[in-house]
Amino acid sequence: MIARYSEKDIAALWDEENRLKIMLDVELAVAKAWCELGRIPKDALEDILAKAAFTVERVQEIEKKTQHDVVAFVSAVAENVGASGKYLHLGMTSSDILDTASSMMLRDSLIIILDALKNLDIEILKLAKKYQHLPCIGRTHGIHAEPMSMGLKFLNWHSELKRDQERLELAKDHVSVGKISGAVGTYAMSSPELEVKVCGLLNLTPAKVSNQILQRDRHAEILNALAILGGTLERIALEIRHLQRTEVQEAFEPFGVGQKGSSAMPHKRNPIKCERICGMARLLRGYALTGMENIALWHERDISHSSTERVIWPDAFNIAAFMLRSLTKILKGLSVDENRVKSDLNITGGLVYSQRVLTFLLDELNFSREAAYAIVQENAMKTAQCQARVSFLDMLLSDERLKDAVEPEKIKELFENDFYLRFVDEIFNRFAEDFEIIKSADE
Amino acid sequence: MIARYSEKDIAALWDEENRLKIMLDVELAVAKAWCELGRIPKDALEDILAKAAFTVERVQEIEKKTQHDVVAFVSAVAENVGASGKYLHLGMTSSDILDTASSMMLRDSLIIILDALKNLDIEILKLAKKYQHLPCIGRTHGIHAEPMSMGLKFLNWHSELKRDQERLELAKDHVSVGKISGAVGTYAMSSPELEVKVCGLLNLTPAKVSNQILQRDRHAEILNALAILGGTLERIALEIRHLQRTEVQEAFEPFGVGQKGSSAMPHKRNPIKCERICGMARLLRGYALTGMENIALWHERDISHSSTERVIWPDAFNIAAFMLRSLTKILKGLSVDENRVKSDLNITGGLVYSQRVLTFLLDELNFSREAAYAIVQENAMKTAQCQARVSFLDMLLSDERLKDAVEPEKIKELFENDFYLRFVDEIFNRFAEDFEIIKSADE
Amino acid sequence: MIARYSEKDIAALWDEENRLKIMLDVELAVAKAWCELGRIPKDALEDILAKAAFTVERVQEIEKKTQHDVVAFVSAVAENVGASGKYLHLGMTSSDILDTASSMMLRDSLIIILDALKNLDIEILKLAKKYQHLPCIGRTHGIHAEPMSMGLKFLNWHSELKRDQERLELAKDHVSVGKISGAVGTYAMSSPELEVKVCGLLNLTPAKVSNQILQRDRHAEILNALAILGGTLERIALEIRHLQRTEVQEAFEPFGVGQKGSSAMPHKRNPIKCERICGMARLLRGYALTGMENIALWHERDISHSSTERVIWPDAFNIAAFMLRSLTKILKGLSVDENRVKSDLNITGGLVYSQRVLTFLLDELNFSREAAYAIVQENAMKTAQCQARVSFLDMLLSDERLKDAVEPEKIKELFENDFYLRFVDEIFNRFAEDFEIIKSADE
Amino acid sequence: MIARYSEKDIAALWDEENRLKIMLDVELAVAKAWCELGRIPKDALEDILAKAAFTVERVQEIEKKTQHDVVAFVSAVAENVGASGKYLHLGMTSSDILDTASSMMLRDSLIIILDALKNLDIEILKLAKKYQHLPCIGRTHGIHAEPMSMGLKFLNWHSELKRDQERLELAKDHVSVGKISGAVGTYAMSSPELEVKVCGLLNLTPAKVSNQILQRDRHAEILNALAILGGTLERIALEIRHLQRTEVQEAFEPFGVGQKGSSAMPHKRNPIKCERICGMARLLRGYALTGMENIALWHERDISHSSTERVIWPDAFNIAAFMLRSLTKILKGLSVDENRVKSDLNITGGLVYSQRVLTFLLDELNFSREAAYAIVQENAMKTAQCQARVSFLDMLLSDERLKDAVEPEKIKELFENDFYLRFVDEIFNRFAEDFEIIKSADE
Repeated sequence: MIARYSEKDIAALWDEENRLKIMLDVELAVAKAWCELGRIPKDALEDILAKAAFTVERVQEIEKKTQHDVVAFVSAVAENVGASGKYLHLGMTSSDILDTASSMMLRDSLIIILDALKNLDIEILKLAKKYQHLPCIGRTHGIHAEPMSMGLKFLNWHSELKRDQERLELAKDHVSVGKISGAVGTYAMSSPELEVKVCGLLNLTPAKVSNQILQRDRHAEILNALAILGGTLERIALEIRHLQRTEVQEAFEPFGVGQKGSSAMPHKRNPIKCERICGMARLLRGYALTGMENIALWHERDISHSSTERVIWPDAFNIAAFMLRSLTKILKGLSVDENRVKSDLNITGGLVYSQRVLTFLLDELNFSREAAYAIVQENAMKTAQCQARVSFLDMLLSDERLKDAVEPEKIKELFENDFYLRFVDEIFNRFAEDFEIIKSADE
Repeated sequence: MIARYSEKDIAALWDEENRLKIMLDVELAVAKAWCELGRIPKDALEDILAKAAFTVERVQEIEKKTQHDVVAFVSAVAENVGASGKYLHLGMTSSDILDTASSMMLRDSLIIILDALKNLDIEILKLAKKYQHLPCIGRTHGIHAEPMSMGLKFLNWHSELKRDQERLELAKDHVSVGKISGAVGTYAMSSPELEVKVCGLLNLTPAKVSNQILQRDRHAEILNALAILGGTLERIALEIRHLQRTEVQEAFEPFGVGQKGSSAMPHKRNPIKCERICGMARLLRGYALTGMENIALWHERDISHSSTERVIWPDAFNIAAFMLRSLTKILKGLSVDENRVKSDLNITGGLVYSQRVLTFLLDELNFSREAAYAIVQENAMKTAQCQARVSFLDMLLSDERLKDAVEPEKIKELFENDFYLRFVDEIFNRFAEDFEIIKSADE
Repeated sequence: MIARYSEKDIAALWDEENRLKIMLDVELAVAKAWCELGRIPKDALEDILAKAAFTVERVQEIEKKTQHDVVAFVSAVAENVGASGKYLHLGMTSSDILDTASSMMLRDSLIIILDALKNLDIEILKLAKKYQHLPCIGRTHGIHAEPMSMGLKFLNWHSELKRDQERLELAKDHVSVGKISGAVGTYAMSSPELEVKVCGLLNLTPAKVSNQILQRDRHAEILNALAILGGTLERIALEIRHLQRTEVQEAFEPFGVGQKGSSAMPHKRNPIKCERICGMARLLRGYALTGMENIALWHERDISHSSTERVIWPDAFNIAAFMLRSLTKILKGLSVDENRVKSDLNITGGLVYSQRVLTFLLDELNFSREAAYAIVQENAMKTAQCQARVSFLDMLLSDERLKDAVEPEKIKELFENDFYLRFVDEIFNRFAEDFEIIKSADE
Repeated sequence: MIARYSEKDIAALWDEENRLKIMLDVELAVAKAWCELGRIPKDALEDILAKAAFTVERVQEIEKKTQHDVVAFVSAVAENVGASGKYLHLGMTSSDILDTASSMMLRDSLIIILDALKNLDIEILKLAKKYQHLPCIGRTHGIHAEPMSMGLKFLNWHSELKRDQERLELAKDHVSVGKISGAVGTYAMSSPELEVKVCGLLNLTPAKVSNQILQRDRHAEILNALAILGGTLERIALEIRHLQRTEVQEAFEPFGVGQKGSSAMPHKRNPIKCERICGMARLLRGYALTGMENIALWHERDISHSSTERVIWPDAFNIAAFMLRSLTKILKGLSVDENRVKSDLNITGGLVYSQRVLTFLLDELNFSREAAYAIVQENAMKTAQCQARVSFLDMLLSDERLKDAVEPEKIKELFENDFYLRFVDEIFNRFAEDFEIIKSADE
């Protein structure tokens, strides 16, 4: 990933030197396990543990000749170990090391992602709580529909993120496996016992069956889970972009001191961070696609997946982490203009309450269906036609057909937002446990 | 989906008439729940339950005018119900009905898919058992590597299918939810209590929070799980295609009596069914992509997802079911040429045992690394150069450097396949419980 | 494609009976060509031309047994031809017929698409002309930027559509080829001469080289061109959705008499047709992906592409034609609220002219950079803070620093939109030739 | 792109410093054009041309504060220019610079790609020529079909690459445009005249219409053309992988001295370079997808595309160039085992000639259809059943039904490959002009 969008912890994890270091961890775990099983003398093991080392430069130098990166890596380490080096990589196939190391890196990346997701979720929960009782207009098709609670927007995001978390957890389970089963999965030069020990040392579960490699459905699942997570983050960022439009101005992503939208145009606060998140979701979808094409390999493996994984695994994790953290910062600094939220509720002159008026006429005043519709439709139409210069309420209040039927006060009540928010607390209560985290976070 | 690739049960489930029937089920559940809550009189409910009906033609006729399919549907039903029709769709938003009905159809489709997956798995387990002890060549990069058990190929597929099942189950959980929360998720004209009752009647869980619709990450997850399943099935089909090549001929998909590959060319048994499965996996990946783009909707919903779902939901389920069942039939009729499997093991003249010979020279005969490599490499090269007309074993047996060092019998033992299969039973035992199903299936 | 989104002409073209009819056209062209070359007696040819016929049912009946659709088709035709039937399909490989017929269907589909594109373009050009001189606000990042001509929006779409047309034309060229080169492209049982004659009869160019089939990059190119076209149409539809938002209301897709958005909510005119177009673009991208995966086939062909093509070719053309025609109707009935367009220009209280004011202060009044910025920024900020209750112009007019420097009239002139539209005619003139079409269309 | 897959020239072109350098070229062209138009004094221009410079570090330092990369860039340059710096970026919108610079980089990248494509094509043409008359087996579905010329495989690739070239050329045309039309495409602060001059200096065509940016269909087209090119390269690499299988061994990608497949297993020459190319094609498809999602932006632009372009543009070009050059090297060193090619023709014992035998019986010996089929089918079946230990020819020669009907010599002639290659020269002649390039390359 380009420096601009790299996240330090993800980048450090996938850095070439660290990748080789983790491969070395696997090799050392193998050596320890063989020693326990009596295949490597104790002093040779000690020798290995003491001296095993490499430099990236030396590995690359050897690889130029061998054109085989694991052979190069093992040679580079063996050079440093000396005589006991012959016990390195004993009975191993390259993929035993590579795929087991990859599992560790993928698992650790997922842990980072899950942690970043949790931090984002905390901000979302805070916003949900903060705006739980703020009435705002609900929009469908981009058109004003009915009043709702602004907090519900955030709660809905929280709920979706929880499913993202579940998908990522399942993907983590599926990839937290090692394989030391040799060239075609038969343990020809190793043994299941060895695999158990090695995986134990590396905090992995042994794959119940493998061929030369771990099957790539496991890895595709990760990329798919990240791509769906990307969709969630895109949805959130898209909402903010909409709310920040010049015509809406209900919420704004934070704007740095010194940040240039345009110095001469103070209205020109562009939601560039949210736009970036929307764009990045497209990257994650592209990577997911590549991952799914990697599943169907030839026989006991072909290596077509390998080059793509070197690229898209770190890229996908970097982008996902960047998005999560960027969005966390955005939400932390999100500026909601409550006055504007309130005034936007009335853009239509009260037409957004028409459904309730209609129901009232039918249920409470026992108007016939035809009569009720006529009253509502005609007044609604008039309100719309005058561009809400006269409100729907006033139109109704001056409608002769209603004058005898009902107290004006009763009609006015229909235009109160409380009605629309009456179940909000009940909805929030369903997530009571989830909110515990921001209580403790507050302390 | 075109008729050629439609599966009866899936097609019946997604047929327009059935779709409306399930929507009617939701409407009736709503009526029942309102009745329990006292909003609909009992005799009106009975009236509704007795008379509610529609024809697709009438719905479409009305829709031409209204350009709104749910309004058209409710009108068509109401026409038949008569006076009590006014209690239909009470307090409902179109999406309450549509999304709840969709959840039912998606859940039921997933049940069909999971059932088809189980049937495929049974055939796979049978093959695994049948060929558990059949040595075959393991291939990596398309090149012969080492002997393995043919049963392991199948067992590996079984293991992958189990993960597919887990992914589909999680997706099913995530979509088995209903929502009767109104235009923007506030229950403005309904109530949480109503939602609980309706969902209970329909065997769904109420969504803990929703806006106008259920969030589309739930649905993207299904399509992604199907696309990864497609990758698994593609991997299986690809293996058979490879095994059926003229140069390999180890296994063949079944060939119908009367089927035309080419009448005059009996060797021309083309693996067209497996090729078709490989192609279809590409369709599922395409649908997954569309599904992921549907997640980020505007505000409380925009309807851009809807048209795509009408197309890709039935298409994806039809294709997935077709693939599963086609592959089940293929595996049921799979013809394995055991003689060919055996003879193919020796194409390289025994070079596939060279790793073991080398290890033997190092570990048992205590040759130096250099000496051991020299012996193995030189003889291996000679074998390769004569295109295996003299076998690697014979080359070794006539090598002066080995004559004094070891009994010929000991060298011959290195070329036995049993060694490579010594852990196969242990691997299979890890799946002992899974094999129970074919015991009972056999009875 | 489901009936709802099928286009009559596309559906008719891809209908199974028509597909077989076109295959028959190819077979008959082959027979004619063989006759010219002396391989088929003239009376046999006449016999064939007179009697060749089939029913879909009979073809499907035979295919059930043969599991080979071309063999079934030829048998069904031969049954009707009788004795001369032995001259049917002479020297042919199935793909000679299938791929040549497919080329004809793809070419004809592209002609339909190009024609629909032209019709859409005409509506766009009309709108461009109509609104050439209507000032509207230009928006970037969803934020008001500077005034522009509304006609420029349309002209920009026209320009993009022209590139779409060029891409589709190139794709049409690449697919308007036939191949009668036999099982592996060697003309073993036919001849190049035959191919030339057959292609001539079918108005195709002979492929300069082929193997069993025409290479699938040709077909992927079509789907990619359609997917990019989809992106263009999505961009147009997205613009209308934005303009139709409750907060904007500058333009509206047409709303049928009797159409239900919501009867009680006249403001609830949802841009559902445009939303649908946005969704459908996602389908086209999914199909493009599948098409690109079809390129890399095994050796002289594998048939994995075939099943996908049966699905995505008609689906992609149906959807693309539906989108084009739906959008044509939308634009034909597009309702632009010019008053609103004008008033929206002033939402920011004139801040959108601040760039010009700044330039004026620097260039005309020779303020120092610091002084100029100070004046503009301070007044702009005040305007923004009072939510434009006092306009930017009034703020400037009452700024002491400007009072002596310039006539108020001069400042007022900076807030005229004409300045921003001064090059619009020049831009339009670049497309003068393209506008000819709507002159003639008007007559 | 990771270092492993970066191509020097592409990487240098997209390097951050070079990117800023090209942006500076655009800024300087703007200054020159303004000077010609009288807006910048000549000595100020000379000042600018003499002093304009930047360092990446300084730009990044400023960007940290402004969070706007173009503002930071211009400031950094202006610092170095001093007083005349105020004439920098005169009347410009960031995108005037960015998009015009991007066009230059995309155009130059495409020139590199087209050049690499030409070099690959030369190797392909050489191979086509070299193996023009080498008979080999043609395979469909992975099954032996009929003899063909090995050169035809290569010629077919050449023909596909030519279409790739045409697609890339059209994409290059579409992107070789600049835009200096300001914030929303009206030239508010610049002029069409300026744009013409600037584009002329940069060897670009002015976009006939633009808004804030150049429309993204232009850029999607590039990525799509690269992705289809990827499919072509994948097809080529896939063919070699198949030919290199242990069971086939007709062709081998070059194997470096010192390269490790497996030292002890000389048969283990894995086609890892070709496998890598197949994998990389998946990356290009993923990037294409992202590119297509970038087309539909909001109004006069939103910036969601920008982050993805920073990533996928250099990534796509690096990968495509790597693939092209890697494949060029592979083909340059391709090792074809002509003996094996010949012997593989006979794996089926001559069944691949059965079609021709059948035709001969029907056309030349006037057997009835039934009799001819019976003779061919029975003998073919027997040949297949004995696994070709007796050849199809010998079977036929000993068939009583043929003994009286025809000289054995006539039957033997049916098994000659020349027949299948009789039109090869004619096919090659269609490309006579294309082959000129390797004549001159040879000299």
